Amino acid sequence: MKDMIFDQFHYGVCHYPEHEPLERLASDIARIARAGFSFVRIGEGAWGYFEPEEGQFQFELFDKVIAQCKRHDIKVIFGTPTYCAPAWVSEKYPETLRWNFSRIPMGHGSRRNFNYTSPKYLELSDKICTALAEHYKKKKQIIGWQLDNEFNCHMDVSYAPSDEAAFRVWLKNKYGKIEKLNEAWGTLFWSQQYGSFDEVHLPQPTATYLNPHALLDESRFISDCVVAFAARQAAILRKANPRWLITHNGVFSNVNGPDLVEKGKLNFFSHDQYPAFVPEWGYASSWLIRARSLSFPYAILEQQAGPGGQMIYLHATPRPGQIRLWAWQSIAHGAKMLSYFRWRTCAYGSEQHWHGLIDADDVEGRRLAEARQMGVELAKLPKAVFDAPVVRKAVVLRDYDNEVNEKRINTYVGEAKEEHERWAMELARRQIPVDYVWRDGNKLNLSGYSLIVAPHLKMIDKQTVESLLQAVQRGATLVIGAQSGTKNEHLHIVSQQAPGIWRKHIGVEVEDWSSLPRGEVRNAKMADGRTVPLIAFAEKLKTTARGTTVLASHDAGDPLFAGGAAITRTPCGKGAIVYVGGYLGGEGVEALADEVLDAVGLTGLVDATANVEAIARDAGKKKYLFLMNHGAKAEEVRGLPEKSRDLIAGAVLPARTITLPPYGVAVLEHH
Amino acid sequence: MKDMIFDQFHYGVCHYPEHEPLERLASDIARIARAGFSFVRIGEGAWGYFEPEEGQFQFELFDKVIAQCKRHDIKVIFGTPTYCAPAWVSEKYPETLRWNFSRIPMGHGSRRNFNYTSPKYLELSDKICTALAEHYKKKKQIIGWQLDNEFNCHMDVSYAPSDEAAFRVWLKNKYGKIEKLNEAWGTLFWSQQYGSFDEVHLPQPTATYLNPHALLDESRFISDCVVAFAARQAAILRKANPRWLITHNGVFSNVNGPDLVEKGKLNFFSHDQYPAFVPEWGYASSWLIRARSLSFPYAILEQQAGPGGQMIYLHATPRPGQIRLWAWQSIAHGAKMLSYFRWRTCAYGSEQHWHGLIDADDVEGRRLAEARQMGVELAKLPKAVFDAPVVRKAVVLRDYDNEVNEKRINTYVGEAKEEHERWAMELARRQIPVDYVWRDGNKLNLSGYSLIVAPHLKMIDKQTVESLLQAVQRGATLVIGAQSGTKNEHLHIVSQQAPGIWRKHIGVEVEDWSSLPRGEVRNAKMADGRTVPLIAFAEKLKTTARGTTVLASHDAGDPLFAGGAAITRTPCGKGAIVYVGGYLGGEGVEALADEVLDAVGLTGLVDATANVEAIARDAGKKKYLFLMNHGAKAEEVRGLPEKSRDLIAGAVLPARTITLPPYGVAVLEHH
Amino acid sequence: MKDMIFDQFHYGVCHYPEHEPLERLASDIARIARAGFSFVRIGEGAWGYFEPEEGQFQFELFDKVIAQCKRHDIKVIFGTPTYCAPAWVSEKYPETLRWNFSRIPMGHGSRRNFNYTSPKYLELSDKICTALAEHYKKKKQIIGWQLDNEFNCHMDVSYAPSDEAAFRVWLKNKYGKIEKLNEAWGTLFWSQQYGSFDEVHLPQPTATYLNPHALLDESRFISDCVVAFAARQAAILRKANPRWLITHNGVFSNVNGPDLVEKGKLNFFSHDQYPAFVPEWGYASSWLIRARSLSFPYAILEQQAGPGGQMIYLHATPRPGQIRLWAWQSIAHGAKMLSYFRWRTCAYGSEQHWHGLIDADDVEGRRLAEARQMGVELAKLPKAVFDAPVVRKAVVLRDYDNEVNEKRINTYVGEAKEEHERWAMELARRQIPVDYVWRDGNKLNLSGYSLIVAPHLKMIDKQTVESLLQAVQRGATLVIGAQSGTKNEHLHIVSQQAPGIWRKHIGVEVEDWSSLPRGEVRNAKMADGRTVPLIAFAEKLKTTARGTTVLASHDAGDPLFAGGAAITRTPCGKGAIVYVGGYLGGEGVEALADEVLDAVGLTGLVDATANVEAIARDAGKKKYLFLMNHGAKAEEVRGLPEKSRDLIAGAVLPARTITLPPYGVAVLEHH
Repeated sequence: MKDMIFDQFHYGVCHYPEHEPLERLASDIARIARAGFSFVRIGEGAWGYFEPEEGQFQFELFDKVIAQCKRHDIKVIFGTPTYCAPAWVSEKYPETLRWNFSRIPMGHGSRRNFNYTSPKYLELSDKICTALAEHYKKKKQIIGWQLDNEFNCHMDVSYAPSDEAAFRVWLKNKYGKIEKLNEAWGTLFWSQQYGSFDEVHLPQPTATYLNPHALLDESRFISDCVVAFAARQAAILRKANPRWLITHNGVFSNVNGPDLVEKGKLNFFSHDQYPAFVPEWGYASSWLIRARSLSFPYAILEQQAGPGGQMIYLHATPRPGQIRLWAWQSIAHGAKMLSYFRWRTCAYGSEQHWHGLIDADDVEGRRLAEARQMGVELAKLPKAVFDAPVVRKAVVLRDYDNEVNEKRINTYVGEAKEEHERWAMELARRQIPVDYVWRDGNKLNLSGYSLIVAPHLKMIDKQTVESLLQAVQRGATLVIGAQSGTKNEHLHIVSQQAPGIWRKHIGVEVEDWSSLPRGEVRNAKMADGRTVPLIAFAEKLKTTARGTTVLASHDAGDPLFAGGAAITRTPCGKGAIVYVGGYLGGEGVEALADEVLDAVGLTGLVDATANVEAIARDAGKKKYLFLMNHGAKAEEVRGLPEKSRDLIAGAVLPARTITLPPYGVAVLEHH
Repeated sequence: MKDMIFDQFHYGVCHYPEHEPLERLASDIARIARAGFSFVRIGEGAWGYFEPEEGQFQFELFDKVIAQCKRHDIKVIFGTPTYCAPAWVSEKYPETLRWNFSRIPMGHGSRRNFNYTSPKYLELSDKICTALAEHYKKKKQIIGWQLDNEFNCHMDVSYAPSDEAAFRVWLKNKYGKIEKLNEAWGTLFWSQQYGSFDEVHLPQPTATYLNPHALLDESRFISDCVVAFAARQAAILRKANPRWLITHNGVFSNVNGPDLVEKGKLNFFSHDQYPAFVPEWGYASSWLIRARSLSFPYAILEQQAGPGGQMIYLHATPRPGQIRLWAWQSIAHGAKMLSYFRWRTCAYGSEQHWHGLIDADDVEGRRLAEARQMGVELAKLPKAVFDAPVVRKAVVLRDYDNEVNEKRINTYVGEAKEEHERWAMELARRQIPVDYVWRDGNKLNLSGYSLIVAPHLKMIDKQTVESLLQAVQRGATLVIGAQSGTKNEHLHIVSQQAPGIWRKHIGVEVEDWSSLPRGEVRNAKMADGRTVPLIAFAEKLKTTARGTTVLASHDAGDPLFAGGAAITRTPCGKGAIVYVGGYLGGEGVEALADEVLDAVGLTGLVDATANVEAIARDAGKKKYLFLMNHGAKAEEVRGLPEKSRDLIAGAVLPARTITLPPYGVAVLEHH
Repeated sequence: MKDMIFDQFHYGVCHYPEHEPLERLASDIARIARAGFSFVRIGEGAWGYFEPEEGQFQFELFDKVIAQCKRHDIKVIFGTPTYCAPAWVSEKYPETLRWNFSRIPMGHGSRRNFNYTSPKYLELSDKICTALAEHYKKKKQIIGWQLDNEFNCHMDVSYAPSDEAAFRVWLKNKYGKIEKLNEAWGTLFWSQQYGSFDEVHLPQPTATYLNPHALLDESRFISDCVVAFAARQAAILRKANPRWLITHNGVFSNVNGPDLVEKGKLNFFSHDQYPAFVPEWGYASSWLIRARSLSFPYAILEQQAGPGGQMIYLHATPRPGQIRLWAWQSIAHGAKMLSYFRWRTCAYGSEQHWHGLIDADDVEGRRLAEARQMGVELAKLPKAVFDAPVVRKAVVLRDYDNEVNEKRINTYVGEAKEEHERWAMELARRQIPVDYVWRDGNKLNLSGYSLIVAPHLKMIDKQTVESLLQAVQRGATLVIGAQSGTKNEHLHIVSQQAPGIWRKHIGVEVEDWSSLPRGEVRNAKMADGRTVPLIAFAEKLKTTARGTTVLASHDAGDPLFAGGAAITRTPCGKGAIVYVGGYLGGEGVEALADEVLDAVGLTGLVDATANVEAIARDAGKKKYLFLMNHGAKAEEVRGLPEKSRDLIAGAVLPARTITLPPYGVAVLEHH
């Protein structure tokens, strides 16, 4: 991976010369260079330029851009332009269109209106990718390719006839015989039996609830379609120039992240980072943690450069310092390539309110100034920073299937489905390093983690359980929660008593349980009087092993739970397993974190308020600490490593403390 | 009807052997018998088993089940399995599909995706029903049949071409000539005239509001389709075995309850009772009052056995005692047959979170224990209890057409449309016996009622008015409300001054009126200072007869109503008619009930809080009193009949009081 | 225009003899005459009567009506009956149907289910209009025609194939070459290029956001279709009888008001006035201000006569006096013709709850009494009143394109889009005369206005700016707001720095800005401590000209705005331009009005509370003042002109004050 991002950090900007008058072409590249950028991302939206009529290709504009880039030593990440196409594609080949659930084709006039399965669309995609790859295969300026753009953004399903056909093939490959599908989908219920694969449809409008197992397979199928589409484009590009590095910018719903990277044959993963979408900085961190869980280092191909907005909304404008702060945050987490979206605000189109560094008035203002400052500061960092691994302390286990289930299928836990993000956010607010790791049916690498959180993996496999138990044996504390292990890989209820596969390992049985209406909690009380509020779904536990102790009990208020155990702890090897009989919201995670972190002995990297984010990177001899103040007020950070050197200021700190200005950033080097 | 439910109470459970491994078949029936059950409901979801390919029938599994049932003396209620079908039905015969309002067919993959009108679906239904009836006609174990399952549950409309065709035939039968339809539908307005029945459609997407009269006919048509479908299946079954008793489990929207029972040729009505859907026990009572208004005794074919849930929701788990309490409630109101839904939780499918008595882990837990206890207790009751009529005191008059109008057509009164249920709930909370009776265009049997509530029957016929007046003459107090008698049977405004047909009988004219925005009330003030808040729609009344007195007046706050009468009372024979110039919410019903019940001299059966439900049954010499505590705390019930015998405890009460534990039940026998 | 409304005020009622039994025909007209009415509006919903079968016309009923009208000297406004048609139109010619966005045809069974473009519908419309025009061309009783009814009411779009075809023709006419369309629609973004007009569709279902420029053209196209349809009917009528005056009743969404009147070839504009739809009287005034901005005098063809309602809602009943008050309000603003909707409540159909002066019970009640009183009072007014122009003081500049943008396209400012109405309402509440004037690309007539408000015209043309500047030079104060001048006529962002074309004139630059989430404000503080809360979108301003002063500044709370100017004032000739760096809600308009009105020296016509509306009309020597109390309590109005004569009471006021009873009205004459 290291040689993939080459030997340097790449600092760039997305640029769309096709949106600008030709006269600006040369000066724009020159100004981009002057602003401190070393690469541009181009091309991914320009199918209409490249192939104005079917089979008639033109490249002149982009040839000129690349020539200018060469002149200014600007590298290029090129995009395959398949996420939007000129009208002739939709008009001549309506079979390429994405259909919505009601089976209405999504027409021309927006973006991503194509399905991933129609032979014609795949053929057209092959042709444009091949044409670009062949035309540009010798251009040294191009260092890599972005495939398409934000797969499944805005719309994550399609029900075109070609999708139905592909789904049938996919099912046949998976199940072989229709009997196996009938079994997996539980078609005995509501007499849904299929006589052959030809009778199967993608989920469709029905009188009432759909089949949950079919929905799970649909999400797996959609992801596989995306991944196959990515791999297909990647193969074309690599055939033309095997040295090109290939990426894709984002993992949206109905896309399995690890699959996209591995089976999609990406050299590295990229992410588009828009913190203005979310009210708390922790959410933005969570996206970056996910990015680095998929590849380290990763790239940010779209970094928020100003207020974004489409026709119905407009972000609040980043406050002075935030554009820089957010870029630093992306880098702190592991970006080795970062480009702002975008150089110029497009004066027209659905995203005319998505602001670039420079607006239509061509005035160089605050936004560009922040980016320029950032470039200057980046140059002060030693190269080692960008490759230094993020320090491991805690990890949250995530899983595509389980998350699909809570988001699209069995959605009754509502907001409680965010528990894995809440754990990451809570740890981040405490300046405790936290990673994500993805269940994949194989052994997990959990070395280095003293806290592992795997909230509610209803579907879980033996290999994963084994990996977790081994990590616990070695000393980690594992936190699992209600309903863990209660479903099999098809989403059937398992025949073991809850918590299924975990029961024998933790000596806990679920005696009773109840869903909780939104807004209602059940308070699990600890011995010291503190409470952990459980939301959405709570369990009454019974311990069945001597070693297992009750950390918190239900109070007497609700006859269903009265007196039962709510949270237990089971020592196991050098570690322990904490079982939480319920779902946790933000408050619950905070309360339980107090307990668990104490027990594990995990403390924050620094001493600061919850406005401060701290990311530790370890390059061996040298170590780095990124400190970021997400608040609008100055924050003092204490407990820093001795003799820390402030790399931006270029001076060793006189004491183990630093004051970060509002939205301020510091990068410290220490031993 | 008595011989229909035979000579005993039937206590059972729904069982789906087709969802379980074959190995469990024998042991499940044995365990069902051991648990105290005397019958199982089976088969209604098993079309896929019975007819895996068109015309290829198999019965082995169910033959075995019935053989095992025989062995354990378990009776069987069999279901015709037409509410869901294997994929070949939808695939081969798309004309059988239900279409939604946008004319999108509802596909395979859920349930009840068929319309009631396509000749092919009717043919297939006939075939499977005939095959089952012929195969099982000599099985003594089978005592009755449930037709299909929950007609119109989840989806209560269909707009398939066959529905359109059937609607035209229905209209032709009803109106004979198109001119009559034009008149009934008021097509002079907005120039909606039809030249022939061929031009008529079911309600369809239009630029704005639909024709209200057409919507009313649509609801009548849909109900008639359901009823005809029921009668068609019933005829097939009876032809095979005239001794079989036939029922259907529920009356959902767009089904006229009395029609379903009478014209659908049911021997008795059944209801599926899930109290966990509603926050107040009174709603659950209201369903049971409706059930017994349709047949007495009735059956509960699905009695809540645990938390129910589909993919997007999950009931709160019944608290300890509630499963038993709710079953007793069903019996108290008049069930002579009750089966829990279901024996086993189905480990897969859309209802995998609809919990049976035993879960996938096969552990016999609290839920089964409550059902078993219930069985033991039931055995202690003399047979006479189940046939003893419910004591008559108060009755609420209901009507399909009027309710359809408020739910689907002229919906502007919003929540106020629940007034009839609020009256039932309020009386129930006061332990005053309350029934429902349905307007049917014939004379009503209202004997025995001293209070009759007929809130807002805009459409009303002369026979009904006459019945009501006769009851009043005999001594009853009748409460009617705003807008009574203002529409004719087609939903046209009548040409008499409001309240139409009632005006001459009550000596009241509506001088003015206004709708009230949601959240606004007008307070009708009584002489003693108490107020009755009117919601949704209020009237200013003028009395025009000497005998009519003003019970409550509007205050001066609103110039429209200032000084006008709000509630009047007109003596009539030995009784009186109270006219309420407005709609009542819960608070209004409570306030008016204070007044009216005093006047009528109606008091509760016992002295208890509103958590306690009391149902009185009168077997002539012996009388029975069911007492149910719906609260989570113990409740003392006073004022019991002397020398009451507690049938469950098996002892005569020492005093006229009893304490019911949380969710506790007592059944008393007295003279 | 004066001779168009002839030589008198017309007072009338809408009447639908086709909805009533024939026996009522003569007596109804006699009663209408007796009630004081001088005209009826008839016919617009009666296609089904006129042409029960295609090509078979009948007129007898309406001939009789006209004969009766003649007998009672009742004039007639006849409607072309094309907004709803008998079923044969939809059944025989489905190509005439309107399609919704999902491309579902809107079927028979409601109203306005036709598109404006299908050749067949146009042919049928031509035929029925020609038939009526020819049949009635010599009837002197008919003084004018209403074209169709409420174009675009309820549904303001259509996507039928004929609409698509017409859109392509419209685009070809507008752009000539597809390259021009590509440029205007910014199709370079998201590769939306079109190769030919044949590839273009009306906006259609897409995967995500549509093209904003296409949406703008769609709204212009729809309006043009409506206008062309109007002009087509008008031509047919005028051909038959050139003396007929032609109007249309309303301007709904996607109709450009000034275009409808001018290009639609109307002799005058009419409006349907239903104040019960809105909670504040100012909204109702705003509609009337709009009506007179489109023609003066105008007609009210439907004046609220009682509570209106369709199936899902029902207005609150007008309180005693309000029916009269609202009619006076319509007249005060400039109606010279007014008819109530409607004489009789229709006993059936979707609007059976839309109440006329008389209900189905045929009782003459309060509603008719108010209308009759109104007729008596009207007779007391001298003719000059109705033609006397409304006095000019303040004006709000409105624009179809900009309003379409905020309502349908870039909708992110949410409620703030109502600012133009809020200004009108605020001025009305202060009894300051206020008009609307429409941007039309030509010079505006702004003489007589000392205050001009043009809140947020993003799209603005040079001619309009010039007109505004000239008015300012002459002494007016102009108030403009955030984002003014930032878009070109295609809705592209302009290349000048904000506020674009205004910058050089006002010496203000927008330094930074941010959207504000709903519910958040930024307070612009004036020197005297008062604040103007900005909502939705705020700007930080920098003054760049010496003369420009800062009226209000941002406080230090938000680092983005801290210390920046928020509101500026630039003297210009004898006047000044106030630039508001933000959007204003009701509170902001109120606060800024305090400041601006003081500076301009504008005060109310009278001294009264905000419940009182005052309209001044100036006939030269004689002047008139309409005073209306919209409150439920009496209001004293002071500061009246000396020796004012109360035209209704028929007496000169003893002092310069009058007390208006609840919902009371006075019309004063003075010099």
